[in-house]
Amino acid sequence: MIVIMNPQSTEKEIEAILERLKQLGLAGHLSRGVERTVIGVVGKVFPELKDTLELLAGVDDVVPISRPFKLSCREFCPENTIVRVGNVAIGGDDLVVMAGPCAVETRQQLMDTARAVKAAGASILRGGAFKPSTSPYQFRGLGDDGLRLLAEAREETGLPVITEVMAPGDVELVARYADILQVGARNMQNFILLDEVGRTGKPVMLKRGMSATIQEWLLSAEYILAQGNRQLILCERGIRTFETYTRNTFDLSAIPVIQKLSHLPVIADPSHGTGKWYLVSPMARAAVAAGAHGLMIEVHPTPDTALKDGAQSLTFENFEKLMAAVSPVAAAVGKKMEGLARSG
Amino acid sequence: MIVIMNPQSTEKEIEAILERLKQLGLAGHLSRGVERTVIGVVGKVFPELKDTLELLAGVDDVVPISRPFKLSCREFCPENTIVRVGNVAIGGDDLVVMAGPCAVETRQQLMDTARAVKAAGASILRGGAFKPSTSPYQFRGLGDDGLRLLAEAREETGLPVITEVMAPGDVELVARYADILQVGARNMQNFILLDEVGRTGKPVMLKRGMSATIQEWLLSAEYILAQGNRQLILCERGIRTFETYTRNTFDLSAIPVIQKLSHLPVIADPSHGTGKWYLVSPMARAAVAAGAHGLMIEVHPTPDTALKDGAQSLTFENFEKLMAAVSPVAAAVGKKMEGLARSG
Amino acid sequence: MIVIMNPQSTEKEIEAILERLKQLGLAGHLSRGVERTVIGVVGKVFPELKDTLELLAGVDDVVPISRPFKLSCREFCPENTIVRVGNVAIGGDDLVVMAGPCAVETRQQLMDTARAVKAAGASILRGGAFKPSTSPYQFRGLGDDGLRLLAEAREETGLPVITEVMAPGDVELVARYADILQVGARNMQNFILLDEVGRTGKPVMLKRGMSATIQEWLLSAEYILAQGNRQLILCERGIRTFETYTRNTFDLSAIPVIQKLSHLPVIADPSHGTGKWYLVSPMARAAVAAGAHGLMIEVHPTPDTALKDGAQSLTFENFEKLMAAVSPVAAAVGKKMEGLARSG
Amino acid sequence: MIVIMNPQSTEKEIEAILERLKQLGLAGHLSRGVERTVIGVVGKVFPELKDTLELLAGVDDVVPISRPFKLSCREFCPENTIVRVGNVAIGGDDLVVMAGPCAVETRQQLMDTARAVKAAGASILRGGAFKPSTSPYQFRGLGDDGLRLLAEAREETGLPVITEVMAPGDVELVARYADILQVGARNMQNFILLDEVGRTGKPVMLKRGMSATIQEWLLSAEYILAQGNRQLILCERGIRTFETYTRNTFDLSAIPVIQKLSHLPVIADPSHGTGKWYLVSPMARAAVAAGAHGLMIEVHPTPDTALKDGAQSLTFENFEKLMAAVSPVAAAVGKKMEGLARSG
Repeated sequence: MIVIMNPQSTEKEIEAILERLKQLGLAGHLSRGVERTVIGVVGKVFPELKDTLELLAGVDDVVPISRPFKLSCREFCPENTIVRVGNVAIGGDDLVVMAGPCAVETRQQLMDTARAVKAAGASILRGGAFKPSTSPYQFRGLGDDGLRLLAEAREETGLPVITEVMAPGDVELVARYADILQVGARNMQNFILLDEVGRTGKPVMLKRGMSATIQEWLLSAEYILAQGNRQLILCERGIRTFETYTRNTFDLSAIPVIQKLSHLPVIADPSHGTGKWYLVSPMARAAVAAGAHGLMIEVHPTPDTALKDGAQSLTFENFEKLMAAVSPVAAAVGKKMEGLARSG
Repeated sequence: MIVIMNPQSTEKEIEAILERLKQLGLAGHLSRGVERTVIGVVGKVFPELKDTLELLAGVDDVVPISRPFKLSCREFCPENTIVRVGNVAIGGDDLVVMAGPCAVETRQQLMDTARAVKAAGASILRGGAFKPSTSPYQFRGLGDDGLRLLAEAREETGLPVITEVMAPGDVELVARYADILQVGARNMQNFILLDEVGRTGKPVMLKRGMSATIQEWLLSAEYILAQGNRQLILCERGIRTFETYTRNTFDLSAIPVIQKLSHLPVIADPSHGTGKWYLVSPMARAAVAAGAHGLMIEVHPTPDTALKDGAQSLTFENFEKLMAAVSPVAAAVGKKMEGLARSG
Repeated sequence: MIVIMNPQSTEKEIEAILERLKQLGLAGHLSRGVERTVIGVVGKVFPELKDTLELLAGVDDVVPISRPFKLSCREFCPENTIVRVGNVAIGGDDLVVMAGPCAVETRQQLMDTARAVKAAGASILRGGAFKPSTSPYQFRGLGDDGLRLLAEAREETGLPVITEVMAPGDVELVARYADILQVGARNMQNFILLDEVGRTGKPVMLKRGMSATIQEWLLSAEYILAQGNRQLILCERGIRTFETYTRNTFDLSAIPVIQKLSHLPVIADPSHGTGKWYLVSPMARAAVAAGAHGLMIEVHPTPDTALKDGAQSLTFENFEKLMAAVSPVAAAVGKKMEGLARSG
Repeated sequence: MIVIMNPQSTEKEIEAILERLKQLGLAGHLSRGVERTVIGVVGKVFPELKDTLELLAGVDDVVPISRPFKLSCREFCPENTIVRVGNVAIGGDDLVVMAGPCAVETRQQLMDTARAVKAAGASILRGGAFKPSTSPYQFRGLGDDGLRLLAEAREETGLPVITEVMAPGDVELVARYADILQVGARNMQNFILLDEVGRTGKPVMLKRGMSATIQEWLLSAEYILAQGNRQLILCERGIRTFETYTRNTFDLSAIPVIQKLSHLPVIADPSHGTGKWYLVSPMARAAVAAGAHGLMIEVHPTPDTALKDGAQSLTFENFEKLMAAVSPVAAAVGKKMEGLARSG
């Protein structure tokens, strides 16, 4: 941490800061520039120190220099983390595709979709049983029944299942049925929920919050890692900006940034990232080219009757086309598409 | 809801849409313009209809025309809602000031602050027992102990208490101690929590989410109102934008907007809205001039040793100055400051 | 400037940086922390140095510590700048109201408005002759004819005139007619235009750009000041965010921030800041309470037939009401409303 | 255009609107829903009509349904526009790479870079002679001398040249030297400049503004097209959001969106889009996978001594690596890399 004094600061003020640091068990290294004096803080700093120092007389700014995250850092774990779910490995050379309906609606809808996405090369089935809904008057998911249908679909197709958990009290229930617990964008800073999914030891996928910086996203990851759960996947799904043509602004740069800062696998969700079905395929290709370890895609037998997010869901046919279009791009960046091979 | 056809749409496509609407128990009114054909949907529309119609051939856009919120609407309840907590009425002519430390740290700190803010004219005591913290390595609050200290402070000063609840499982506990349950910005779309605080029937204060539009904020309010709980206060606390000088961008226009759209009381939190103590007083004045029914202000005996948000907390002396500075502005817009009168 | 080394950096890398600084005529002060080594750069740094140092091996981050602006800084000029136009002084204790139509449309429209705003207490007449228009198919202003009408209106009412200049080639022409040259939000970083208005020596009002940080705004101010023109007023008019209910997000915190950082007067434009006529009066009050030195308000004889921005323009009657509503707030924060006194 | 009445609107108000439309030479189609009455406006609407109608009594909202742009629309010109510059065709099956230094600094620097990017497969040389600079104290380009050096470099390498023009008064001069005139992000709404470059008839590349929606970008394109100049290329370069890790948020979804809405070619600039050299190559691949017709890349002999934007510039070696990495992705989406073939 570095304390930057303002140009008018006095010797007395500088001494007071050095004194204060000493009281806190820290030391201060003085560096006098032409315009400013700067104090480097040496010792075990803590996050609140910034706020504390900023209030002292003569201080202009306080700049933290240790990154606030640790367990998610590449420095902490130089090797890429690989999350394994059944035969599927996320974080390595395989491009893993998770596909399925936004919400589980009926047995028929789910089974048809599960078979279709498997045939097209997906290796994980997605489907929401508990659905966050902006309005209380909209469909909020089938709940327990949805979970049971997902388990059935897994049994029939062999595809592991990912589904969202929204409340700390539901974690145990959802963990009984799901292979991967999804924490949604709106819950990225639901810290109690993060603690809870961390404790399960089960694979977790943490979506980026709508207005979360990459640093805040990694700090939320720390909550889960700090509970001893290293089975963690990140998922970019778009951020909120002034642009309204797309539902969100799909921030693909976050993918190489995460790969530089962290050892965790990172996948991309172009369905939520764009909100429009005709943008899903080009942006899926772009995500893979940017280095994503996987994709999460919404697929529905009849998007125009979907209870949720129909506008961004692909038909079976369009999902097949997407897989065919993504495949050569995956090859171009050295990724294998296991599913496709298996189905070929 | 209005369906806007694209300029190349065919008669057959238009007929298909009218047919589809009929199947759904709705009717379509055709209106042919020079450039476009438009279909007005008549009947009881449901929110998912937009997604459904957007997918039909020939459709360019679908525009909803009923506002998606109902119970929070001024049309639903033309009179202002007044939330009463003890002797305090929020939503009427009184300017209600809630003040206290960001986090409850010690009995001494809380009691001193409670006495000081009461003396300066505050009528509600704020203080966090459960604290959301971006990093798992920071202070997360005293929990139950904090709640007990708040109850003690209420007993001593007579000030009703507002404190945050973060998890659905904690609602019952917090409701036992608090007079007003606060739902924080990060939990504005924690729908399970909204249901739960709605069920208590206790006064609730719902902070605007960091990236929530005013419409989404009112939809979250609907969750609480839909549980039969009308004791609801809204609180503007700044939104996330590209500007980094302030911690958030304090969106004061939201105050007159809410007052136009809704009957609910709306207060402002310039401490979080700006993140810098020296901006709190001018922005408190601005909020009152914009029509806020109240203010929420962070106060700490020694901000430079605060465990949380010291940089935005006021000393006792600065809080007194703020109250003195706000008072003539409140008078200028026809608001009374009960607390000040009482202490005078 | 401070160079923060990454935790894995080697001694050789550190030495290479010290060597490089020496070549550039600078010195480096080493400070070794538990986790990081930091180098404070001493000497006359230049802005590009950051980019240069960031590329060197072992460097994690480079933090500038001198503010990049100088002439606009409070440190440079501790006394508030007062811009004088005729009898009007902007930047002192008077609250200066600039009012008039968005665009000059006809002699009748302008004269009627000029008389009405003068009667209600405005002290400067605004009106656009050259209008920026998002689409080439919209009204772009009367040009020279508009300027001549403004000069006529000044002659008749005695009100000084402010009007926008959009092109470097028009600066001389506009400066012949206007008392204050306005640089619009879209031109805040039109650096050639900033140079040009700087050279005139005439009072200039620089609006904040739609996506400009406060720092960038002050840097644009530096362009004008650097030409030797100190007659500069800043104007907050809203920034672009995700919120769509209002046309822009009116960032009133910028007012006390500017007053802390700079000696320049700062006024507020609630007409553009909100985009809705019914929000103009509450937000004008809020701007004054936040400390604005003045207001810029759009007024039109018949907003519903206005060629531009009718939705945010006030009728004469509503402008009178606004002045009456603002007046007690101005008094509450120690500002005088000259115009009102004159008209009373 | 559609007028949505509020639920409390009266018959008299509805009639007044129909009457008003008649006066304006338009007709209104009435459609009465359960909750609302809606009026479809038939006839030749004009953009200001929205503002006008919004002010009438009983009106809740006015929704425009004709897109405000015409010449840039795919409907206007169903075939893709191909911009030809020498042997290079932008907008077809070739992936066109424009590369070179951010700013022209010296003959040596420019010639070396021109030769290196040509050898690596670039087909157009970029380089700034007039540079927009946030601060007046930074390097603003070599001006005329820079233009002459660019012409020299073209002569030697045969590469056509693209360079920025910042002022309407410089258009003629720059057009004498450049093959493509670049309008920078900060000037996207410098409407006088748009008119001027439109009039030259020369190829123009229009960068997206930092806070411009896709619709506003296309409206700025209309300015150029409306002058009769159809030689227009769009360039996505990132938008401003709350994320600070990257210099901008590179909005790659804009590429397929533009290709759906418009016939104009669209390229991507990952150097400005990310601001960090190590993100340029992955994001260049992503842009190509999303369907970009070309790339604009900053290359410098020694980025760590560059006078401008060194942190985002590639060395010759890294540019070669980028070309090699992009090439298989281009092939995967059916694009040819002419330059690479030529150099192969």
